[in-house]
Amino acid sequence: MNVGIVGATGYTGLELVKMLVKHPRFQLAYIANSEGDTTINELHPSLSGVCEDKVEKADVDAIAKHCELVFLALPHKTAMAYVKPLIAKGVKVVDLSADYRLPLDIYEEFYCPHTDVENLSHVVYGLPELFRQELKSAKLVANPGCFPTSAILGLLPFMSKRVADTPIIIDAKTGVSGAGKKLSEVTHFVNVNDNLFAYNPLMHRHAPEIANKLGVDFEMVNFVPHLVPVTRGMLSSIYITVEGDFDAEALLREHYKNDAHVRVSSKPVDMKNVAGTNFCDIYVQKKGNLLFIASAIDNLMRGASSQAVVNANLMMGLDETMGIPDIAYVP
Amino acid sequence: MNVGIVGATGYTGLELVKMLVKHPRFQLAYIANSEGDTTINELHPSLSGVCEDKVEKADVDAIAKHCELVFLALPHKTAMAYVKPLIAKGVKVVDLSADYRLPLDIYEEFYCPHTDVENLSHVVYGLPELFRQELKSAKLVANPGCFPTSAILGLLPFMSKRVADTPIIIDAKTGVSGAGKKLSEVTHFVNVNDNLFAYNPLMHRHAPEIANKLGVDFEMVNFVPHLVPVTRGMLSSIYITVEGDFDAEALLREHYKNDAHVRVSSKPVDMKNVAGTNFCDIYVQKKGNLLFIASAIDNLMRGASSQAVVNANLMMGLDETMGIPDIAYVP
Amino acid sequence: MNVGIVGATGYTGLELVKMLVKHPRFQLAYIANSEGDTTINELHPSLSGVCEDKVEKADVDAIAKHCELVFLALPHKTAMAYVKPLIAKGVKVVDLSADYRLPLDIYEEFYCPHTDVENLSHVVYGLPELFRQELKSAKLVANPGCFPTSAILGLLPFMSKRVADTPIIIDAKTGVSGAGKKLSEVTHFVNVNDNLFAYNPLMHRHAPEIANKLGVDFEMVNFVPHLVPVTRGMLSSIYITVEGDFDAEALLREHYKNDAHVRVSSKPVDMKNVAGTNFCDIYVQKKGNLLFIASAIDNLMRGASSQAVVNANLMMGLDETMGIPDIAYVP
Amino acid sequence: MNVGIVGATGYTGLELVKMLVKHPRFQLAYIANSEGDTTINELHPSLSGVCEDKVEKADVDAIAKHCELVFLALPHKTAMAYVKPLIAKGVKVVDLSADYRLPLDIYEEFYCPHTDVENLSHVVYGLPELFRQELKSAKLVANPGCFPTSAILGLLPFMSKRVADTPIIIDAKTGVSGAGKKLSEVTHFVNVNDNLFAYNPLMHRHAPEIANKLGVDFEMVNFVPHLVPVTRGMLSSIYITVEGDFDAEALLREHYKNDAHVRVSSKPVDMKNVAGTNFCDIYVQKKGNLLFIASAIDNLMRGASSQAVVNANLMMGLDETMGIPDIAYVP
Repeated sequence: MNVGIVGATGYTGLELVKMLVKHPRFQLAYIANSEGDTTINELHPSLSGVCEDKVEKADVDAIAKHCELVFLALPHKTAMAYVKPLIAKGVKVVDLSADYRLPLDIYEEFYCPHTDVENLSHVVYGLPELFRQELKSAKLVANPGCFPTSAILGLLPFMSKRVADTPIIIDAKTGVSGAGKKLSEVTHFVNVNDNLFAYNPLMHRHAPEIANKLGVDFEMVNFVPHLVPVTRGMLSSIYITVEGDFDAEALLREHYKNDAHVRVSSKPVDMKNVAGTNFCDIYVQKKGNLLFIASAIDNLMRGASSQAVVNANLMMGLDETMGIPDIAYVP
Repeated sequence: MNVGIVGATGYTGLELVKMLVKHPRFQLAYIANSEGDTTINELHPSLSGVCEDKVEKADVDAIAKHCELVFLALPHKTAMAYVKPLIAKGVKVVDLSADYRLPLDIYEEFYCPHTDVENLSHVVYGLPELFRQELKSAKLVANPGCFPTSAILGLLPFMSKRVADTPIIIDAKTGVSGAGKKLSEVTHFVNVNDNLFAYNPLMHRHAPEIANKLGVDFEMVNFVPHLVPVTRGMLSSIYITVEGDFDAEALLREHYKNDAHVRVSSKPVDMKNVAGTNFCDIYVQKKGNLLFIASAIDNLMRGASSQAVVNANLMMGLDETMGIPDIAYVP
Repeated sequence: MNVGIVGATGYTGLELVKMLVKHPRFQLAYIANSEGDTTINELHPSLSGVCEDKVEKADVDAIAKHCELVFLALPHKTAMAYVKPLIAKGVKVVDLSADYRLPLDIYEEFYCPHTDVENLSHVVYGLPELFRQELKSAKLVANPGCFPTSAILGLLPFMSKRVADTPIIIDAKTGVSGAGKKLSEVTHFVNVNDNLFAYNPLMHRHAPEIANKLGVDFEMVNFVPHLVPVTRGMLSSIYITVEGDFDAEALLREHYKNDAHVRVSSKPVDMKNVAGTNFCDIYVQKKGNLLFIASAIDNLMRGASSQAVVNANLMMGLDETMGIPDIAYVP
Repeated sequence: MNVGIVGATGYTGLELVKMLVKHPRFQLAYIANSEGDTTINELHPSLSGVCEDKVEKADVDAIAKHCELVFLALPHKTAMAYVKPLIAKGVKVVDLSADYRLPLDIYEEFYCPHTDVENLSHVVYGLPELFRQELKSAKLVANPGCFPTSAILGLLPFMSKRVADTPIIIDAKTGVSGAGKKLSEVTHFVNVNDNLFAYNPLMHRHAPEIANKLGVDFEMVNFVPHLVPVTRGMLSSIYITVEGDFDAEALLREHYKNDAHVRVSSKPVDMKNVAGTNFCDIYVQKKGNLLFIASAIDNLMRGASSQAVVNANLMMGLDETMGIPDIAYVP
């Protein structure tokens, strides 16, 4: 099965290449970025001797000619211009941007006017633990954001125990690769090393995505991301008020007993044990009516690229674990 | 004024030496650790050419002979054996351990039987923003823990606005120096670098200290510390439910308008801007009824040694800012 | 083909497991450490859900019963006690310790008396670029040290150009995982983070291994390792005096044109592009008669475990690249 | 004595402010950058509550009006446009750029045409260990580069022992702050963290400065800088061939016995013990005819700003140690 990548320059593009060159069934038949005229190992020297394919200037006709399915690793607001003609030409799409993750009104409030309302009607949100069946017949998948993935997977098993109208608090910590390759104050080594700070507290645009998928009022979701001096990794520390007497860890294990890419841990989870993999590791601790949930993922993998390949597997009728890395970057 | 340090081997002992050799009024007349027979620059090579004083084997009579005031930078449970005879001999004591921070019953529940109940009756908790007047006449000061310092300073201005019986959530992040010089799994570079995790979630023994000093029920304090790949620094991200309509930043500024060592920031605070200083930098953001407070300190300075010297300044009738570092380790 | 690992607790043991559970032809049939009675995911939690095999207490008869070939990831001086009986029982051995890397006299000078002189006579030094043919029929392979691997691969192409009796200078930088899991001052996060220093300058015991394999006088090899705040990675910066007019990069490319695991770079090499792989990336620059060679490897992979699996591939008649990671931990 | 800083935005400007606000005799009377219209704590938030002075748009007349001496922390090639009129107006200048460090011909080969040849004739190179007497009467001081400072101080005591026409090898490691605040690929956290690489090997323009001040042929100086994942710090590992039988450490101690800011160490030196100070820590090891010298400084302090204040002290008739930090950023 021929697949392609548009947006090969960034970190998520690199992760897609790393998986697809080793995938048992997908053939990486087309790679593009906005300029073209280069090779993938020129963009990412670590691929020298491994994959030295040409990188084209992105073109819808070329994609449709070469690929049954394409991964779009493009900036928010620019992906939708590709999705519309690609779906029209019958190419399946996994879109890693935010463009199809939200209902129209919420998207337009937090991003910009949407230019492809039609495809919004049938898009499937690419979190297999929520929409596995729908993904199997999807033509367009909106790959979740990294923060929502870690937060939603941590919260899902406990939403029925939550006391209504109590705040959901998500104190998230992310590695710097989440900010992308772009140069900026917050990615300058000197500003990040030996440092740690919150940014956009209570105002980050991933909050509406979390609220929408959990089906709770946006006002209840209190989301504060922190930047930490780590290259890759994400840990969401989540606090909710619950009612009733129950064994939180048992409930967590039961909820995910059939999910290959969620691991429940009896000890607090960390970033390194999931680095380089699609695993989401989750830990829970209960004290009175308060639940502390720690949910760890690799922001570039489960938070983006490996989840995208899982979605592609499902869309193409393959086993969802096929070609998905499970060996962590440890030590 | 002659002062001494008992416990010069560790990081807080080093920080005390660094301040006291430059202090305008205190004379560092005595330095000891548990073995003696060395010099301070042998223990801490960075002091070579700066301070090369002898380090004695700790001895109560020698302390009393040389010092008006002594700093005890000793492990929990061992400090009280020094405090009792020192107070009896008329030496003022700033104790950096946990031994006198808590009421008897709480201390014995979380630590061990207390062997100096008498002095517990008159000890002053060394947080100047809470007990400045009492500190001026104190003979024995219990220097606060690092986590309680950052949490309490962040919470104090807003306790009157808090809705009763709602959880106080403190998601704290600390640098590795907080774990001390002792070798352990969690201080091994490979386990910490590019990693991040919670430890003792909801069960850390700093929680009762926070609850006790704020005057709230221990059950309401939900404290989760995280270890981060940073040498020094502490950030407490605090979430509480409040009522009423008020300007949170204005309230914060008003509360600390007379405190030289608290800085209110309109932007999220970070670890580096306070590293090496006694400042506590605080930021607040309100969203509906939820308050997010970020409180940053240097865990070894405001969280231990520089706060101890501030307390000594007050006890000896000096200006509390005398000899206290205010120039941060930036960049 | 059934293979085993003795010494599964450490970092090199973990790397072996990570490769062998994915190897197309090797079956990981036996895992042991010095205590046994555990599982591999208990020792290395990142393997949970991936490999949860039992870990036995190491036993020569059990190894011989289950394995055609065994990897020994044991401390120097203790490996030889296993090698002798294993070879006698017909088990092939890849020894990752230093025990068989050196001629008897040099080994005994730098380590201890050798208790298996017999097998020293036929051991093959496991650097495929030097001894590929011999490795194909080897029964016992001494896997090279990490520093010698990076230094020798950098120097080999240029030894014929070197001016006799001029110093060979190897300024090496290694990540902290090279010091192993053992707790020590130099692996304490606070001592390594934001720091860098040489250790055992001109006196490290890897120097005789380098001299011996290059066939030069030990006195000519000046080797200074530095510890750097990096988890995995090794860069050797090498300086030699050469004669004659030649294109150094062309010579380097020609030398390694048939070696799949050496990449020649026209830009200075770095640690990250080889992290997690068996590649050795080499760069050379000539200025007058001085040659600067930079040689980068992953200290745990090409410097230990992946090179061991390459050697096992050769010993068992397989393609040397089979099951060897080539996708780097980037970013 | 009134002094000023032009170029307050960068890291070296910040370090100058940090020292000058605490200096016993210098009054910081003027601060400027290229835009002005801001405050120093707006540029450097860590200074809030410590120094909140106005920052002016740099102007020669204003400098001359307010200052007896000025520090120029400006980019190479732009500083000389300020020096010429300032010297003409009788203002003493410590120039932290490269503009006056080299003889005319060498400067113009490596930088650009020089527009102030007149002042080149009387400039003093600001390395007190070489030119202390000349500095006392200097009107214009060229503050040395960071790499040359560490390399020259390491080499000076041994130049008389060096075998003529043998290569001087300087393998230098620098923290990222040396690259300045400017955003670039090599300062992006993701590219530096867990990584290490050489840059401009054998071709860096600090090499001619080293050769010129040591009085050796430029061809003999082989200088290779490496970028390391550290914020501040510089270690030069130096290798030279010597003749004669001598005690290298004794020679080193003798050479610097009267220099307050050089510390000789019997153990390999590191970056942290000098961080935040003006110390240069030096270690030497001899093996046959080869000398290994390790020389550590803080690149922003001894490599720039604190050396500049030492020079100013000398120019103004003060003790050279006055107001110079000697307490390291440890841990």
